[in-house]
Amino acid sequence: MKAEFINPFLQATKNVLETMCQTEAKAQKPQLKKDKKTFGDVTGIIGMASEEVTGCMILSFEKKCIINVVASMLMEDPKSELDDEIVDAVGELTNMICGGAKASLAKLDHKFDLATPNMITGQGVEIATMSDSPTIVIPFTTKVGEFVIEANLAEK
Amino acid sequence: MKAEFINPFLQATKNVLETMCQTEAKAQKPQLKKDKKTFGDVTGIIGMASEEVTGCMILSFEKKCIINVVASMLMEDPKSELDDEIVDAVGELTNMICGGAKASLAKLDHKFDLATPNMITGQGVEIATMSDSPTIVIPFTTKVGEFVIEANLAEK
Repeated sequence: MKAEFINPFLQATKNVLETMCQTEAKAQKPQLKKDKKTFGDVTGIIGMASEEVTGCMILSFEKKCIINVVASMLMEDPKSELDDEIVDAVGELTNMICGGAKASLAKLDHKFDLATPNMITGQGVEIATMSDSPTIVIPFTTKVGEFVIEANLAEK
Repeated sequence: MKAEFINPFLQATKNVLETMCQTEAKAQKPQLKKDKKTFGDVTGIIGMASEEVTGCMILSFEKKCIINVVASMLMEDPKSELDDEIVDAVGELTNMICGGAKASLAKLDHKFDLATPNMITGQGVEIATMSDSPTIVIPFTTKVGEFVIEANLAEK
């Protein structure tokens, strides 16, 4: 993945968490993904596709983090357990973050459309990516816990 | 999902299994997806996207079935366990089947591009789809076991 592809995902993540969920998200150093396990307990996956590029983005939250992020997003008290509403919210956040990165990358003349998000529940699920291009992981910390985004976007 | 979207996925699945894996795949009656569990032990997911449509396709094999299908595909003896080569083959098959459906749907003037496939290992993993459109499941039987495809493709 080209270095210029990383920042749009990083910025979109910060923007969505801050504006939609009133949660400050601090990005840690981006790194290459080494294993295949999901980072967190709820994980969103979304495909990116056009005639020029192909890719996917993964957003994975630890349980405590997503329960509190969704509570801020919906302006409600935190739930005690994961439920369908929280899983759907991860799909929405995945869509919004990737939509933000899409808008920034379109300005750099890298255009693509978004596929339908899928959400996976469960810790340590093995997800491999079929790509010749490496996957970049950006860890984020918040006051309520940690999450990561993983992006793999390659020119055809 | 429109009825005219179903047959291209069904035909592409039969074609890919027969031509690439020398495996006859008999389609059972398509049905609406009701639960969120993966059908099999190895599951491929691929996104579809364009300015007009958005979607995803899932291909999920039970262990015995994919071990034998990959053995036919590679013209080797069946392995005793799932490994990275089999998981990668599920990514390839997901790509080829969705690519076949893409070509048929383009002829009906429904055009889209494919995202990067992801492959999930594990039985009964919960995968939800964030879409207003229902997901169609097509079960297939072969001499070596069962698999399903699940397609969700909607006009924007």
